[in-house]
Amino acid sequence: MPLRAAVIGAGYWGPNLVRNFRSSPDWDLVAVCDLDPARAARVVGDRSTVEVETSLEALLARPDIDAVAVATPAQTHCGIALAALEAGKHVLVEKPLASTLSDATRMVDRAEELGLVLMCDHTYCYTPPVQHLRALVHSGELGDILFVDSVRINLGLVQPDVDVFWDLAPHDLSILDFVLPHGLSPLEVSARGSDPIGAGNSCLGYLTMPIGHGAIANIHVNWLSPTKIRHTVVGGSRKTVVWDDLNPQQRLSVYDRGVDLELTAGTADAAEKRAVNVNYRLGDMYAPALPEREALGQMVTEFADSIHEGRAPLTDGRAGLRVLAVLEAASESQRRAGAMAPVALTDLYAQRHGLGQPVGVGVGLLR
Amino acid sequence: MPLRAAVIGAGYWGPNLVRNFRSSPDWDLVAVCDLDPARAARVVGDRSTVEVETSLEALLARPDIDAVAVATPAQTHCGIALAALEAGKHVLVEKPLASTLSDATRMVDRAEELGLVLMCDHTYCYTPPVQHLRALVHSGELGDILFVDSVRINLGLVQPDVDVFWDLAPHDLSILDFVLPHGLSPLEVSARGSDPIGAGNSCLGYLTMPIGHGAIANIHVNWLSPTKIRHTVVGGSRKTVVWDDLNPQQRLSVYDRGVDLELTAGTADAAEKRAVNVNYRLGDMYAPALPEREALGQMVTEFADSIHEGRAPLTDGRAGLRVLAVLEAASESQRRAGAMAPVALTDLYAQRHGLGQPVGVGVGLLR
Amino acid sequence: MPLRAAVIGAGYWGPNLVRNFRSSPDWDLVAVCDLDPARAARVVGDRSTVEVETSLEALLARPDIDAVAVATPAQTHCGIALAALEAGKHVLVEKPLASTLSDATRMVDRAEELGLVLMCDHTYCYTPPVQHLRALVHSGELGDILFVDSVRINLGLVQPDVDVFWDLAPHDLSILDFVLPHGLSPLEVSARGSDPIGAGNSCLGYLTMPIGHGAIANIHVNWLSPTKIRHTVVGGSRKTVVWDDLNPQQRLSVYDRGVDLELTAGTADAAEKRAVNVNYRLGDMYAPALPEREALGQMVTEFADSIHEGRAPLTDGRAGLRVLAVLEAASESQRRAGAMAPVALTDLYAQRHGLGQPVGVGVGLLR
Amino acid sequence: MPLRAAVIGAGYWGPNLVRNFRSSPDWDLVAVCDLDPARAARVVGDRSTVEVETSLEALLARPDIDAVAVATPAQTHCGIALAALEAGKHVLVEKPLASTLSDATRMVDRAEELGLVLMCDHTYCYTPPVQHLRALVHSGELGDILFVDSVRINLGLVQPDVDVFWDLAPHDLSILDFVLPHGLSPLEVSARGSDPIGAGNSCLGYLTMPIGHGAIANIHVNWLSPTKIRHTVVGGSRKTVVWDDLNPQQRLSVYDRGVDLELTAGTADAAEKRAVNVNYRLGDMYAPALPEREALGQMVTEFADSIHEGRAPLTDGRAGLRVLAVLEAASESQRRAGAMAPVALTDLYAQRHGLGQPVGVGVGLLR
Repeated sequence: MPLRAAVIGAGYWGPNLVRNFRSSPDWDLVAVCDLDPARAARVVGDRSTVEVETSLEALLARPDIDAVAVATPAQTHCGIALAALEAGKHVLVEKPLASTLSDATRMVDRAEELGLVLMCDHTYCYTPPVQHLRALVHSGELGDILFVDSVRINLGLVQPDVDVFWDLAPHDLSILDFVLPHGLSPLEVSARGSDPIGAGNSCLGYLTMPIGHGAIANIHVNWLSPTKIRHTVVGGSRKTVVWDDLNPQQRLSVYDRGVDLELTAGTADAAEKRAVNVNYRLGDMYAPALPEREALGQMVTEFADSIHEGRAPLTDGRAGLRVLAVLEAASESQRRAGAMAPVALTDLYAQRHGLGQPVGVGVGLLR
Repeated sequence: MPLRAAVIGAGYWGPNLVRNFRSSPDWDLVAVCDLDPARAARVVGDRSTVEVETSLEALLARPDIDAVAVATPAQTHCGIALAALEAGKHVLVEKPLASTLSDATRMVDRAEELGLVLMCDHTYCYTPPVQHLRALVHSGELGDILFVDSVRINLGLVQPDVDVFWDLAPHDLSILDFVLPHGLSPLEVSARGSDPIGAGNSCLGYLTMPIGHGAIANIHVNWLSPTKIRHTVVGGSRKTVVWDDLNPQQRLSVYDRGVDLELTAGTADAAEKRAVNVNYRLGDMYAPALPEREALGQMVTEFADSIHEGRAPLTDGRAGLRVLAVLEAASESQRRAGAMAPVALTDLYAQRHGLGQPVGVGVGLLR
Repeated sequence: MPLRAAVIGAGYWGPNLVRNFRSSPDWDLVAVCDLDPARAARVVGDRSTVEVETSLEALLARPDIDAVAVATPAQTHCGIALAALEAGKHVLVEKPLASTLSDATRMVDRAEELGLVLMCDHTYCYTPPVQHLRALVHSGELGDILFVDSVRINLGLVQPDVDVFWDLAPHDLSILDFVLPHGLSPLEVSARGSDPIGAGNSCLGYLTMPIGHGAIANIHVNWLSPTKIRHTVVGGSRKTVVWDDLNPQQRLSVYDRGVDLELTAGTADAAEKRAVNVNYRLGDMYAPALPEREALGQMVTEFADSIHEGRAPLTDGRAGLRVLAVLEAASESQRRAGAMAPVALTDLYAQRHGLGQPVGVGVGLLR
Repeated sequence: MPLRAAVIGAGYWGPNLVRNFRSSPDWDLVAVCDLDPARAARVVGDRSTVEVETSLEALLARPDIDAVAVATPAQTHCGIALAALEAGKHVLVEKPLASTLSDATRMVDRAEELGLVLMCDHTYCYTPPVQHLRALVHSGELGDILFVDSVRINLGLVQPDVDVFWDLAPHDLSILDFVLPHGLSPLEVSARGSDPIGAGNSCLGYLTMPIGHGAIANIHVNWLSPTKIRHTVVGGSRKTVVWDDLNPQQRLSVYDRGVDLELTAGTADAAEKRAVNVNYRLGDMYAPALPEREALGQMVTEFADSIHEGRAPLTDGRAGLRVLAVLEAASESQRRAGAMAPVALTDLYAQRHGLGQPVGVGVGLLR
């Protein structure tokens, strides 16, 4: 028996969710909800018995809906999600999870209290290259992570209400959260944005953060680039991966190349001097064969599976929280002209739940 | 009658200078000087009457040498260049001009006092794409410059004495100095470096600086990348150029694409609100035909021409100074965890020469 | 009022047609017909009132269907299309139009007799790059066509019943037919195929044909290539276009590059010798901005428009005929070890309709 | 003690040979010979004691020269090479070995009679990717060779006296000779050329030949392409290699991808029917790390080594013969409108030396 879903919001992202819920054997799409019934009807299409709803209350009151997917503007996520949770529905939310960290925290807390699944649609985490990248990192094949450089630029829709970091960086941050051995947990963040066209918000920028042991991650986001680049390098002490998402024939390239230092013990009279031998590995590259499948299809399957199994989904509300915490710190750093700003999440969670004692639906949600 | 040259330093870069002085009709290469005569002899090759010198003093004392090219370690540039200037030789110096801003200032001042040419080997400025890029900016075809993003990464030689900024960023900075309408003149710089392999210096990093009117330039340098990228975007209000130096068939691409904002006057009761129309230009791209010629050949010609014409070369000592001033500020910013550090040059020159009254060989050197 | 369509065949291509008829405002998709009702039902999807039919007769007998789209195996095209035409339906047929030239001729003749539209789904002709390419050729911007080189290779499905020419070359041939000033009208064709894996049919091959004035077109098709290439060069006396369909950011590149010969009149005593000056044009390249839109959406719109306007569609049955005539000649050439084989179409049509007097739905169908 | 060389011909290719003989520790470049002394002097350069000769006789009479490298027009190769051999010099000849197969045969025969090295400058065979490709084929890693597709196109110098096959295809043919398990030994060749600009010779064309067991090789050469492509695929039953020579970061890609057929024994009543299972391998790709070194440097070293060791060089005169035999057959095929033309070499050699009993300098030259 498939689970019964409704999609709330028939704007930019909603149709993609509709299409995937419709074609998934795990789901039965019952209704699409939008304030504009014509827009919802267009998404549903002709000769369809999927229902159109315009009232959120009416939708949530229906007993024949198990879960809702929210694809509305970010500032409405919290209200809709809390209402849906109160109505006993499992909830999937488009990224970012909410427009503020405190809103998001309320959503996560409430879902956990009610024992319902709250999932964040971090779509890229369900693509074959990101899933392979995660496996490469977690298996140790890359060694220690030395650096991450992620570029996500194109001629983009200049948003009236959010800056380019809030628009594009959630993708990179959710990928980092998914891929890094300990998830996304920087203590501080530096962000330098620029608004050279006078749009009112940063249209391009750079976000840098320490990711442990001297390593840093940098994210370059840009709405003003005439060309599209989706290019991420994850440098490891053993191997380094280049992910070029616009090269479908070779998205991932794993290089056995790098720099190794050998520290030799100095002699007595040169104790402070360390003698260093620099070795260059110049080995082969390989490009793993990756399946071609739509990420959103995998995502709605994971949503169903996590509901059936009573567990947190791979990209749960807490993953969304970690992303939001970095985005808020990035905004603070921008206000400080790029100086490092602390990431609030650790304190917040330490206060509330006790550090290292995360709780979730069933068992431990926090990685 | 060609000018007579000697090359000092037969290490990594010296052979390239030797080859170009040799094949230039403007120059007669008289000698190569190195402490190691075997190394110099190898560079000179068999069946050649180019002389090998091991003594700098002896070399500089020769009356049959008009100019020297210095390709020795950066910390020796100042001593060698000053000695050569005192001996009445014109001087070409490999980048960076010196290892400190104060050394470089002494070199520039002394050359100007003696009326000799002091040139900095900013090789990229003599490549066809950079010359074309400069023309595109200076002609106004790009409009106002909105952003510059420059990536220069590859598996590089980890240097024992300098960090990756001092090793690689001089290329990007000298290009910016050459291309930007007002040269390289940021008031402050932010640099975040990382040394994840424990080499003792930053092996990768990001350098950001304001370049006027809300625009920023960012430079990404990295010794640990398994792949080589040489990719610079110069975004303008009219057009945007992408320079991919590793694509010899299409190094420059000029895009008629971008985002235009139209600010509409608000009504009385909404005076603070500005109504903004966002327009997207989605025009064609063109790739200008560029000649294929060796940059160093152009560079040694410019060295000869500037001597003959008693003028500052295109990449004179002051260009080298401007690059060094940014590098020193970048080092200071790294010490401050990436916070903005002021660039010292303006003050220095204001003190010495009076702001806006630059002097040079003949006429105004400072752009 | 939208036209009412049915799709016949729910295999590989049918679902694409279903999706586009469904989302087109010009069409109402009434039914999907397949011998296997479960397969048809899967294509229709849940919560849909699009009907599933398993009987062709029943389908064609329905008065609420104006047109059918046939996506069944090639050898069944003729029978299905003729039945549909007899039932008064307009017909769209997947490429190739039929499995033999004589079948296809019957289809074209019958549609013309009945005044119904017979359209061939030459999908590529409805893509933005091919439409732009056609405009470049027809406007004269390229000058005379000097050569065409088309490569279509990838790891493909080895077909049990047809060779690689019949499987892949229809794409290239239909594009040539659409783009060339006089359509696809070679007098003879050479084809060299190879079956190195013992599949029973050529798995890779080369098809060469004269296209007038000394120019040739060559098509390389290959099922055994590990990488995918879709690369076509159309060389002209003024400009040359490179179409790389796998580069979505720059599918078309128009080069102002080429070789010009100037023939100079010889002197009296050297009358036979022609003095030739070779000039190389080395001008800029430009990449026209192209819209991103789905070709099949354009195609179903053209199907509707041609029915409403009582005219031949852009890719009508005769275009399908011309493609088939070349495919049959290619098979004959393969039997002759690659020697030139004549293309039968001209004779056939000269006999039947009188050369130069093509008839069609409304006005002249044959270019 | 290095061997002593002279380079004959200071035109297009001569300077490259001069540079490599000069920088090789195996060689002492004594003289450069050209009818135009100024041209030779320019190649030698200033401050050099390399001598300039204008008389071939005088050059060959010098006792201080062990070997000559011939870089003159093809029709002069035979005369110069025979004179040099008679003078006791080892000879290296630029490709093609001669302008006719019979000339080339005389050169090969005479060198073998005199026990002197006759080497053909098949430069590409000394590049790292071709050497690696040969190893991949010869080790069996690719399995049986199923097809070869080689594309060598660019805006090229239209030659007054030879067509594009004679100008460009020697590269591909010499590579095939070097790489294929049994060298270049097709029994017949088909070539279709085109001269759409009226240059007097084919400016673009396609050359196809069987290479055994149903496999074919195809070579596409073109002087009129606005872009440069150097792309060769060697398809094997186990793995397939793509060599893209214009991608210095990944010249070779080895794919574990392909199509496997399993022939199943039929049942009694279906004895003729073979049941075929088609299996697709969709494995990883790897790109071997390749050294960066100049091919001509390797080539002059091999020339020296073969002289010292009294053996045939890797690309000996007979390799040049095999290439010429295919070129002559290609010309014959063009005269026959692309029909297959036999390759003369086998007969020629069978007559002269007895098939399978090749003789050479020391031991067996013919692979």
